[in-house]
Amino acid sequence: MHGGDIYSNKIKLDFSVSINPLGASGNVRRAVAEALKADSSIIEQYPDQKCRKLAASLSDKLKLPESQILFGNGASELIPALFRALKVRRGLLLAPCFSGYERAFKSLRECGISIEYSFFTLSRRSKFQLDEKQLEELAKCVEAQKPGILVVTNPNNPDGSMKPLHLMERLAACCRGTGTKLLIDECFMALSDGYDTCSFVPRLADYSEVMVLDAFTKTYALPGLRLGYLLCSDESVIEKTRLQLAEWSVSSVAQAAGVAALQDGGYLERSRKLIQEERLFLCAGLEKLGFEVFSSSSCFVLFYSQKENQLREKLINCGILIRDCSDFPGLGSGFYRIGIKSHAANQLLLESIAAVV
Amino acid sequence: MHGGDIYSNKIKLDFSVSINPLGASGNVRRAVAEALKADSSIIEQYPDQKCRKLAASLSDKLKLPESQILFGNGASELIPALFRALKVRRGLLLAPCFSGYERAFKSLRECGISIEYSFFTLSRRSKFQLDEKQLEELAKCVEAQKPGILVVTNPNNPDGSMKPLHLMERLAACCRGTGTKLLIDECFMALSDGYDTCSFVPRLADYSEVMVLDAFTKTYALPGLRLGYLLCSDESVIEKTRLQLAEWSVSSVAQAAGVAALQDGGYLERSRKLIQEERLFLCAGLEKLGFEVFSSSSCFVLFYSQKENQLREKLINCGILIRDCSDFPGLGSGFYRIGIKSHAANQLLLESIAAVV
Repeated sequence: MHGGDIYSNKIKLDFSVSINPLGASGNVRRAVAEALKADSSIIEQYPDQKCRKLAASLSDKLKLPESQILFGNGASELIPALFRALKVRRGLLLAPCFSGYERAFKSLRECGISIEYSFFTLSRRSKFQLDEKQLEELAKCVEAQKPGILVVTNPNNPDGSMKPLHLMERLAACCRGTGTKLLIDECFMALSDGYDTCSFVPRLADYSEVMVLDAFTKTYALPGLRLGYLLCSDESVIEKTRLQLAEWSVSSVAQAAGVAALQDGGYLERSRKLIQEERLFLCAGLEKLGFEVFSSSSCFVLFYSQKENQLREKLINCGILIRDCSDFPGLGSGFYRIGIKSHAANQLLLESIAAVV
Repeated sequence: MHGGDIYSNKIKLDFSVSINPLGASGNVRRAVAEALKADSSIIEQYPDQKCRKLAASLSDKLKLPESQILFGNGASELIPALFRALKVRRGLLLAPCFSGYERAFKSLRECGISIEYSFFTLSRRSKFQLDEKQLEELAKCVEAQKPGILVVTNPNNPDGSMKPLHLMERLAACCRGTGTKLLIDECFMALSDGYDTCSFVPRLADYSEVMVLDAFTKTYALPGLRLGYLLCSDESVIEKTRLQLAEWSVSSVAQAAGVAALQDGGYLERSRKLIQEERLFLCAGLEKLGFEVFSSSSCFVLFYSQKENQLREKLINCGILIRDCSDFPGLGSGFYRIGIKSHAANQLLLESIAAVV
């Protein structure tokens, strides 16, 4: 399971989720407390369905019109809503990939919509990176299958590799040729090296077939409040998807937190610096322990052990939860993912792994 | 629009929504503030997907197993999710009725699901009450159409009339005969006269085809936080519907608020007392002003004027929003609904209406 179930285990440290290790900023905490206190009516009034204040702030930051932004109750609400709205009947996913997309396809099937999906498996030999060669094969696959939607996570989850913008633009052009919508999941982009050169957001205006999915969840460490968003320059996609969401999808508290998060200058830079330092520390430690470590640009790390396939269970006994990736299509037994946390927590993780292997 | 859009108007008093006029309890406010402060990790952790604490509390209160309870991001998330999960292809609604059900049917159509729905129009002459005679006609309609689902709101929204339990049981038996699921929307039940004798919840165990929908929104005045739930003794309905919800549908804040709300002994009794007193006051005032007032058991009142069809617009100029019900199927021009508020607010409403008509 993604988003480790810490409520059913005696878990002290949850490395199975990949959340900004800086934690929710003081600015956000103050804003939430203030909203609940000063304007006491925030609880007693229906939320603003259009998230006006939040949309204005994000529009300003991204330099996109508000009409091209749709907020949802976490990115995970937006995924099946978008698939339903687009009337997708054939999907193509990259593997390994975040499991939420397959779950969404299955949920469409469960309500009687006939939908097919398949995987384009990234090469283990090229470390799951989408390089020129892999891109050409993927393009051929799109041309052959003509899927209604292609989903790409950038950076890729679970390995954290970043796809350069020029390759994503070539992919978008290919999708235009086959009438395929391209959904780029950038939920980890803002916490990753290359965020300023790899994000597709500045290119959305030229590619009406591309949608970008992002969330406050990981970037601002707010998973408990639920806030995600979808971007698309084709406003009909935004409006159709809105009809598939719950009517007051985004709580007033999440809206207030989102506005405060966007005002928090310096927070993201401090976050990326911490993540870079701790990623180096963790990767070096894991390699020293004999694991194969995959190169990551983001706030999580994928590693592999040929002989160790009970690591998750062993660590649970230490009160530590990591993500066993054996159920990811394209991976298998021995693959694990950890989210990067504070230095003390990361050190404890390495010590605990050393003790159990 | 239901849940008046106070964010686009200069509205000081919103009578278009029907929320507990006592407002969110101090207990809930303290619990939310405490949760955000003491256990600071509530923001930074994914919510408990299974809402364990909340489910245990509600299970205790309703004397139903936790496995027969499903929480959602407001009742409004649960409605289309349930329709999708049941693979409903034909629906029957009572008219006049809450607009969210028609919206849900339309959202299913928008994603390519072929679905038909129709209305059984309650008689204006019998004041929209479901009496013996109306029930027999409704039963005939169910037998003729054999819909996949029949939706009944109890008390009825927008008029507030209560349907007695023995009639609802007869309706359920009729639905069993035609393979029809019966969804009873009890979102206003706890704030209504007869809550202790009319709710279907104690009868759910004997009727696996019946589902009850309820929410904390109106009952505990928490619309800003989003928390609703579905009850059904057929656990496969609960599990299928869960797959149609967002993965972390209920925020941690809403879960904490819900637990606190259920502990608040005496709050509901005080609420019902206030509502009864203020309903008498408002109904008398509206009748004195020449309106036809429909008998309500709940926290809102439907009234009608033959000559006045611009009342909503006139009151907006006074900073007051009421619900124009002309777009409700089965109603028409001249029908208005108001939610009951504090005495001072209700007095101001009556004075403002007197000034503009």
